[in-house]
Amino acid sequence: MREVHVIGVGMTRFGKYLERNMKSLAEEAVTNALEHAAIDRGDLEAAWVGNAAQGIVTGQEGIRGQVVLRAMGIGAIPVMNVENACASASSAFYGAWMGIACGMYDVALALGMEKLFMEDKKKMFQTFWASTDVELMQAFKAMMEEQEKQKKEMGAKDAGKGGAGKSRSAFMDIYSLAARNHMKKYGTTQKQLAIISAKNHYHSSLNPYAQYQKDMTVEEVLSAPEVSYPLTRPMCSPVGDGAAAAILCSEEYAKKIGATKPVKVRACVLASGRDRDLDEEDIGNRLSRKAYEMAGVGPEDINLAEVHDATAFGELLQTECMGFCPEGEGGPFAESGATKLGGKIPVNTSGGLESRGHPIGATGTAQLAELVWQLRGECDKRQVEGARLALAENGGGNIGIEEAAMVITILEKAF
Amino acid sequence: MREVHVIGVGMTRFGKYLERNMKSLAEEAVTNALEHAAIDRGDLEAAWVGNAAQGIVTGQEGIRGQVVLRAMGIGAIPVMNVENACASASSAFYGAWMGIACGMYDVALALGMEKLFMEDKKKMFQTFWASTDVELMQAFKAMMEEQEKQKKEMGAKDAGKGGAGKSRSAFMDIYSLAARNHMKKYGTTQKQLAIISAKNHYHSSLNPYAQYQKDMTVEEVLSAPEVSYPLTRPMCSPVGDGAAAAILCSEEYAKKIGATKPVKVRACVLASGRDRDLDEEDIGNRLSRKAYEMAGVGPEDINLAEVHDATAFGELLQTECMGFCPEGEGGPFAESGATKLGGKIPVNTSGGLESRGHPIGATGTAQLAELVWQLRGECDKRQVEGARLALAENGGGNIGIEEAAMVITILEKAF
Repeated sequence: MREVHVIGVGMTRFGKYLERNMKSLAEEAVTNALEHAAIDRGDLEAAWVGNAAQGIVTGQEGIRGQVVLRAMGIGAIPVMNVENACASASSAFYGAWMGIACGMYDVALALGMEKLFMEDKKKMFQTFWASTDVELMQAFKAMMEEQEKQKKEMGAKDAGKGGAGKSRSAFMDIYSLAARNHMKKYGTTQKQLAIISAKNHYHSSLNPYAQYQKDMTVEEVLSAPEVSYPLTRPMCSPVGDGAAAAILCSEEYAKKIGATKPVKVRACVLASGRDRDLDEEDIGNRLSRKAYEMAGVGPEDINLAEVHDATAFGELLQTECMGFCPEGEGGPFAESGATKLGGKIPVNTSGGLESRGHPIGATGTAQLAELVWQLRGECDKRQVEGARLALAENGGGNIGIEEAAMVITILEKAF
Repeated sequence: MREVHVIGVGMTRFGKYLERNMKSLAEEAVTNALEHAAIDRGDLEAAWVGNAAQGIVTGQEGIRGQVVLRAMGIGAIPVMNVENACASASSAFYGAWMGIACGMYDVALALGMEKLFMEDKKKMFQTFWASTDVELMQAFKAMMEEQEKQKKEMGAKDAGKGGAGKSRSAFMDIYSLAARNHMKKYGTTQKQLAIISAKNHYHSSLNPYAQYQKDMTVEEVLSAPEVSYPLTRPMCSPVGDGAAAAILCSEEYAKKIGATKPVKVRACVLASGRDRDLDEEDIGNRLSRKAYEMAGVGPEDINLAEVHDATAFGELLQTECMGFCPEGEGGPFAESGATKLGGKIPVNTSGGLESRGHPIGATGTAQLAELVWQLRGECDKRQVEGARLALAENGGGNIGIEEAAMVITILEKAF
């Protein structure tokens, strides 16, 4: 396998773009990435395009990548349309990386894109169900009712309100169930979750690409409306539109064009949840071991990370699974300030899914864009000084309570 | 890049399965392929899954592969969900092949699956629009009106009937426009198209996996109802359900498990339509050159082929583009019997899309299944004797009148 470099990234600001279509968002992200890489759109030899919900939102399936690329004058090249729910964009990155690693292409685009905001709210929320096993919905609803009982026992404000099983909030119910189990098992507190959320809102106040750019205090996070105990609204990722792109190439190609700030892909691994022998290990533990093995580094070598904080609890759990702190200590670890800018290992300097935003199929490449900017020293007020190694963890979809897909990527400053 | 072998294939019979779900169809195809490969489902290290329309048909997007695989007890492994309209399954094959070629996996599944038949006919036909640029529909409808005028000039029976722009028939309108242009330019006849269709119906009468297994004469094809001049109904692929799978592995893995009839992947290439410099060359010409270059062979070396006969004209055109006959001579070539069983280069021995059937996202791997069976000498009455090299061409989607995706695969008997 050949070495693969990322030589440019670009994205739109995440947000609500009712008046723009996918072509417009995609073109902005790709144009920015090409400029960042200092190559021309005609130089691209392949494109891997991730998207999660366009089929449901606009009826465009099948050739989503070709449609947006053709509109910006990119044709003829191999285009692969990939899906892995919230991990669609990092799956596109995985494919592009593989194509270069095996020698099929010298330079390729990985694009993630999503447009969720629409007038038809019911349809919009259907998109979240699409990332589950739709036939298992009934069984899932029963599980949610069980949860309501549990929440009542723990004194939750929203218990019995009957929000269970409702589209997007159902995903938050999965996270809140896991969060409550963690609280019981390890003594994790709701305040620790609020600290993570407040930190991410602070980070995103320094990120011009973030959907929300307003700092929040821990108290503000705690007193915000509850989505599903212990999660309040700012602890949950919002609905959003946007696109994010990365340009990957072989090491030789990067040298040939004189790329001044290449970032090397040290590892890129994909897996789905639950092992065949039905062990109880979290997919994050299993897959991060594989990523570190491929990269030949350990968690102690990582300088910063973007992890999949669809909720603040997601971040808490993944700081454990990625090995940044011991199992069960994600709460105290966040409370110590270790994951904040200036801390031992800043996590989600972009603001994360909670505050930079989470347009489903664009999130994976947005995480990678943040890390590439950081490793190139281009992050201005949110810059992590001296960063050399960075990790991205992007999860996607659920079957029951298991994550359906996860991609972990480790990047290294190569200049 | 490592050598990659196909060690097993399997499929469902294509047809109408109102009472079965995707999980059931997928499991049958995968189980057959695993048995054919003589490996266990637990041996799989990755899965690439192609599907085109499930999002629209059932609302299941995002993690379609994980959902069907999990239901048959396959979890934990990397799962990539890919789409390229009618070329979705061969795109899945392309990804699985690449992952093995680059050393990421030793053995992987490529699965194509589709369930189109449903009670809601309107929704069912929406799936065809999804493989176009939905925003270009309006422009497309205008083009169709232009066509009606042209058909009237050529004396077509259906001219002015206003069928233009109607869902599935719109795809057939694209093909019929191209067919009429070919007729004008090269003197191709409607009878030659009927000869292709009759030949494919004959082939499928020998294929137990075919949706239709009834032989048809040239006269029967010609006198069938017209879909869009010069295409009659048997010249057009039907709606269908089904799944088809292939098991790929490294050469070392095939040796290790003692695979007795491995088939080597000599080339696998993907492209999208229209070159950047907007040349007028057909994507098939361009991509077949690339495939032959990768394989180190020429069209004269190919013993049989499966090509994308979404209509009989598709086959006629692709026999030219693949280099089996000179440009413009696809009609006389078919008329000579060269592409029939027993001819110089049998094409679509399975019956092709026209008669074996065309469940969109399953077609690519069904083509490859037919070729693998042929190279292994397992095709009984439709066996091509002495076949060593075989080619599959699978096209997908349209932007305007250009093909959005194409995959060409060249396979070689390796025992």
